[in-house]
Amino acid sequence: MNEYLKHDEWCIIEEGFTPENHCASESIFSLGNGNMGQRAMFEEHYSGETLQGTYIAGVYYPDKTRVGWWKNGYPEYFAKVLNAPNWIGIDVLINGEMLDLAKCKVSKFVRILNMQEGVLLRSFVAELSNGNQVEIEAKRFLSIVTSEVGTIRYAVKALNFDGQISFNPYLDADVANEDSNYDEKFWDILNTKSVKGEGYITARTKKLDYHVCMGMKYDLYKDGEKQKVTASLIEENKYVSNTVVIDVCKGEEVTIYKYASVLSSLNHSKAEIMADAEKVVSKAHQKGYDSLLEEHVGAWADKWSNSDITIEGDVAAQQAIRFNIFQLNQTYTGEDERLNIGPKGFTGEKYGGSTYWDTEAYCVPFYLSTSKPEVTRNLLIYRHKQLQKAIENAEKLGFNNGAALYPMVTMNGEECHNEWEITFEEIHRNGAIAFAIYNYIRHTDDKKYLEEYGLDVLIGISRFWSQRVNYSETKNKYVMLGVTGPNEYENNINNNWYTSTIANWCMKYTQEAMEHVQKNNLTRFEEIMNNLKFDFEEETAKWNAIIDNMYYPVDEETGVFLQQDGYLDKEQIVAADLDPKARPINQHWSWDRILRSCFIKQADVLQGVYLFEDQFDEETIKKNYDFYEPRTLHESSLSPCIHSILAAKIGDIEGAYDLYLRTSRLDLDDYNMEVHEGLHITSMAGTWMSIVEGFGGMRVVNGTLVLKPLIPKGWTSYSFKVRFRGNLVNVRVSEEGVGVINEEGDDISIFIVDDEYVIEKSSSLVIEHA
Amino acid sequence: MNEYLKHDEWCIIEEGFTPENHCASESIFSLGNGNMGQRAMFEEHYSGETLQGTYIAGVYYPDKTRVGWWKNGYPEYFAKVLNAPNWIGIDVLINGEMLDLAKCKVSKFVRILNMQEGVLLRSFVAELSNGNQVEIEAKRFLSIVTSEVGTIRYAVKALNFDGQISFNPYLDADVANEDSNYDEKFWDILNTKSVKGEGYITARTKKLDYHVCMGMKYDLYKDGEKQKVTASLIEENKYVSNTVVIDVCKGEEVTIYKYASVLSSLNHSKAEIMADAEKVVSKAHQKGYDSLLEEHVGAWADKWSNSDITIEGDVAAQQAIRFNIFQLNQTYTGEDERLNIGPKGFTGEKYGGSTYWDTEAYCVPFYLSTSKPEVTRNLLIYRHKQLQKAIENAEKLGFNNGAALYPMVTMNGEECHNEWEITFEEIHRNGAIAFAIYNYIRHTDDKKYLEEYGLDVLIGISRFWSQRVNYSETKNKYVMLGVTGPNEYENNINNNWYTSTIANWCMKYTQEAMEHVQKNNLTRFEEIMNNLKFDFEEETAKWNAIIDNMYYPVDEETGVFLQQDGYLDKEQIVAADLDPKARPINQHWSWDRILRSCFIKQADVLQGVYLFEDQFDEETIKKNYDFYEPRTLHESSLSPCIHSILAAKIGDIEGAYDLYLRTSRLDLDDYNMEVHEGLHITSMAGTWMSIVEGFGGMRVVNGTLVLKPLIPKGWTSYSFKVRFRGNLVNVRVSEEGVGVINEEGDDISIFIVDDEYVIEKSSSLVIEHA
Repeated sequence: MNEYLKHDEWCIIEEGFTPENHCASESIFSLGNGNMGQRAMFEEHYSGETLQGTYIAGVYYPDKTRVGWWKNGYPEYFAKVLNAPNWIGIDVLINGEMLDLAKCKVSKFVRILNMQEGVLLRSFVAELSNGNQVEIEAKRFLSIVTSEVGTIRYAVKALNFDGQISFNPYLDADVANEDSNYDEKFWDILNTKSVKGEGYITARTKKLDYHVCMGMKYDLYKDGEKQKVTASLIEENKYVSNTVVIDVCKGEEVTIYKYASVLSSLNHSKAEIMADAEKVVSKAHQKGYDSLLEEHVGAWADKWSNSDITIEGDVAAQQAIRFNIFQLNQTYTGEDERLNIGPKGFTGEKYGGSTYWDTEAYCVPFYLSTSKPEVTRNLLIYRHKQLQKAIENAEKLGFNNGAALYPMVTMNGEECHNEWEITFEEIHRNGAIAFAIYNYIRHTDDKKYLEEYGLDVLIGISRFWSQRVNYSETKNKYVMLGVTGPNEYENNINNNWYTSTIANWCMKYTQEAMEHVQKNNLTRFEEIMNNLKFDFEEETAKWNAIIDNMYYPVDEETGVFLQQDGYLDKEQIVAADLDPKARPINQHWSWDRILRSCFIKQADVLQGVYLFEDQFDEETIKKNYDFYEPRTLHESSLSPCIHSILAAKIGDIEGAYDLYLRTSRLDLDDYNMEVHEGLHITSMAGTWMSIVEGFGGMRVVNGTLVLKPLIPKGWTSYSFKVRFRGNLVNVRVSEEGVGVINEEGDDISIFIVDDEYVIEKSSSLVIEHA
Repeated sequence: MNEYLKHDEWCIIEEGFTPENHCASESIFSLGNGNMGQRAMFEEHYSGETLQGTYIAGVYYPDKTRVGWWKNGYPEYFAKVLNAPNWIGIDVLINGEMLDLAKCKVSKFVRILNMQEGVLLRSFVAELSNGNQVEIEAKRFLSIVTSEVGTIRYAVKALNFDGQISFNPYLDADVANEDSNYDEKFWDILNTKSVKGEGYITARTKKLDYHVCMGMKYDLYKDGEKQKVTASLIEENKYVSNTVVIDVCKGEEVTIYKYASVLSSLNHSKAEIMADAEKVVSKAHQKGYDSLLEEHVGAWADKWSNSDITIEGDVAAQQAIRFNIFQLNQTYTGEDERLNIGPKGFTGEKYGGSTYWDTEAYCVPFYLSTSKPEVTRNLLIYRHKQLQKAIENAEKLGFNNGAALYPMVTMNGEECHNEWEITFEEIHRNGAIAFAIYNYIRHTDDKKYLEEYGLDVLIGISRFWSQRVNYSETKNKYVMLGVTGPNEYENNINNNWYTSTIANWCMKYTQEAMEHVQKNNLTRFEEIMNNLKFDFEEETAKWNAIIDNMYYPVDEETGVFLQQDGYLDKEQIVAADLDPKARPINQHWSWDRILRSCFIKQADVLQGVYLFEDQFDEETIKKNYDFYEPRTLHESSLSPCIHSILAAKIGDIEGAYDLYLRTSRLDLDDYNMEVHEGLHITSMAGTWMSIVEGFGGMRVVNGTLVLKPLIPKGWTSYSFKVRFRGNLVNVRVSEEGVGVINEEGDDISIFIVDDEYVIEKSSSLVIEHA
């Protein structure tokens, strides 16, 4: 852990400059707007340790796979999150000396991420080795209104000298990925252009030929007055800049406003991209910093009005949940079905690919409740568009007849991971993709989605499951051999309860979905059947045989569902018995020891209990929770939220709260000492789930919203909003009771605990505790 | 398969130059003398495809490990087989044009490996682009008498021209490993020296500081007459040579004799190494080519007289078994306990490390029967010396109290492999190391070995097993979870029958060994107990609890021993059902599919049945053989021999012969199209076992030699020799009967089939079939 940030309801605040924390802060203070993002690097030159990261959504690089030992079925290339050209750079020279925080005395350093407004601020006083003291205030944002525009206001005040300040705003495409497999640079330069007051650079990726053009314009002000200055134009191979020099007297402040446009060939023709970049940056420049900021802040206010969670009585918790919501909203806005939610979002380059099962299992619930249905729908369509690749992926592993195995990690539908025990075996991801379709329809009532996109994905997935099992003559059951469940601390196991459960559910739900489409749109149904060459009789007969005869490992004595066939053969010890120094075990134990231990990395059986809780009575849920929670180490950021929700479900509010704490400040307090690599974006949705589904007890049952709210000790109140089938429902839970406001939509019927209430449109309901 | 070599009883013969086969031939025609070896590269320049390989026993390089995903417990460095400086090179210029077989017309090309004499010959006629025709005869050998010396006789005859021939004999240290993980070169140069008629180069490895010095001297003859020539001396950074030019007339033949010394700091002080190299090469030069050759051929005759197997009536089989024996004898001579038997010997650089369980499981039986006991003893001492590293290796994985896990692959005792499912889980190797001690004593009666070296190794191994199992509350047995058996087509399985069986045997045998030492040398026994801090009561009690309660998976219906707990849950199909195009499956199937299939790569349960056959009645052996043979694909070179021996055991001589064929010509006919990477040295011992233990039925039972000979159809006779407890026994099996000659040692008692015979010293016995 590393707790160096101040607690505040709306801001993340770092006071004092500690170079050792800089890379962590670069991650935590990251900015993004769905279309692009960047780590909180300094604008001015910095020779200290930094992880430079500028990312453009959908622009990636297929890096040649690097392995120790090749296994058949591995992909030849991995889509890497690509570090793009840097557009924020502004070198600053004070009387000829480069401002560099690694080389001067820094005081009054404050870095603030204003989450309410989506703005990054930084101010400090620096004394250079020439004795000159300057006060700097830097402010920047990536517009969520015009998502190709970023803007910086950078002010320098001469505190103790007269002289010259020189600014060198630049665009730099000579950038690399830290995690490049073969130390290659991934960008070629196509075109550069520099004019007085502006500059442009177009770069292309060495593979896949993505073009990216960045443009910049800037203005210079002294004490509020716009300056006319002479600019020296610099154009190097991969670099464009202007140098402007301005005279200052002691006490004067010079401010540079830098406007940037960041365009990619995903959205622009390659022929026009530089011209377009000029237009976009010119428009931004014309509009001006204040107007851009104003509309940006307004748009953030809208986002917050849909997705904010308030917590009274616990500033750390309030800050944390907002941080999680803020980062999710910075990462994905749902406007572009080609994009997805990388595990590190725009905050780091670690892990290839942008799409994990995290999206479906964790992020979908968040976006379903906090955004319009289109946002989630686009996440689903993303997978629909990659169905053919998923079929090819399955073929590569030896499956046929249109069976689809979605990759563990992907960008473009192709696999980006290469541990056989994960890539080939952690196949439960397929189930999460099917479940997300179900969840989307359950939440939005958009059943048409099945006809349009859902059904063929479901069929591909069910076909996979039906081929992935085999009939065991000794068990007289269908078994699923050689899988890895969500608990990656067991590999290549047989009959993982979770995987078999979700597989079986998939084959059932696919048949429900087929029935629905057949009944509501026969033409489309027949079209799908024809396209997929679906042999209805034979294939569904096979599915049903499996459904009726699937093998699930269960402890006969207690009825607890078992992780896998051999789980109870392991020595049964619990996390509390572990020497705290051995944790996290993935840093202290050999892989061998981890695999043989009974310790669980993250919710596995409980993930299934969570997803399918309506199939189990409370005793069963409690029995499994009580068995697995002590054995679960939560060494994945995705784990505590599920346990927290189940703890709340069985009424263990203190347990739920403890688990909530582990998830909500994971990055802010750097629990795992790794935040410098980037934030855990997708698991942030789990934090949201812990509050809304955990404490709030929000569920959808038979098409109706259900709330069973609890409140943790020490919280005065908390509130959240849920968008549900055309309604926007505001829920406030306090020690005294529950208040619900039907903010948008028609009258709505809601269950609170066990009672049904109708809340008329634009009205509210208050239920006080007995 | 690629059958391009001629069948011959004593020689491997390639006729005609086919560049596509050159790399394969470089492997097959390799030379070695236990101390060094090399691929059959050309002496003259060759710009075509070649894998240059010169290897010096015990000189290796710890290359930084390269993995896709790091797992705790992996070693940071891997010992790589190191390509050493090249000393065979002789550039030849004909009237100024470089002789290069890739660039001239080649005819009458013949390459012969004379296995009887240990000599590599090559002759051909080349027409250069200048029209000059030359006839070349090259002959070289690595002395097995003076193992630091190699000698080349290289003759060039001017067929159709007068003019100049220039020879450029050189030493070149600018060499690299093809499999270097980070494309580094591993050698630095310390010193070079060139004098007229000689040259020296000392290089050191960039890590570990091995020094190697090579020296060369040469003489030039024209039509049998020694020539005085002027030499230009060339010394470059990593290269030393002489250039000598000689005038020839059409029809004249010029011969260069190149003598080389190859010394390493394993055997020489670094300060003296170049002086020593001068001495060694001078001595060889003085002795001269013919004398060196004569003593070399004589020494090979001795080797053959101990280890030859003759086969009458089947030239291909005769050639093959001699090739196997020849390569084994080239690889390891047993004179140096620091050395071991790399899987590719001196024939390629693939696979790091030099020592696998192959040594104990396959090579030990070969050397026990064909060499003096000291040879095997040195192989055992090699492991004894690495015991501390094996203990450290186990500690790294979480074991304690002196538990030892020998590495899967090693050079210096440290692990050189990094697939977790192999490195951490294929632990049966530990058992093979213990079994080799047992086997050595059984064969040689050298029980003192236990006191001197054996016991502490056995205790370390047994301690490992006792910690590696855990008690299963559900099975009420000790289980061994998370292992990989010899069948690497299943990973991370539970209760591999073979591993559990050999583990249990180890704990029993260790106690027998302790008893023996206690009884025969109490002082030494107490010393060992003290050194190892062995708690006799507690530790043996634990071992015995495990021995009595070990869990073995067995098919209850048939009594077949099962590979692992879940084996029968797999779809049960047999190899005969497979599309031949899918084989080898490791080249055609995804890893996922392989793991889930019931197909077995190599003998696994049957490996245990083979090792412990005296524990099982013939019905049990047959039942298991009949179950596993159809499911075994023999996609490891180590597999068919074990099956062949068991087939012979149960009287299936045809099955045994078919399996023998797969092992004996594996490399000569390039069954797996990979021989260009190097030969399968260790599995060659399996071929020898197939004949001696399979067809010959040789066993040691209660200290007595037993033979149960069969003869395959089509063989007129075969003979082999067995060195056993001071005797050298020559066995000849023909269609008519069995003849045994007691060639060395006292009277010996031997069982033939079920009858005991005493054969007096230097006499023989003939038993004709009824």
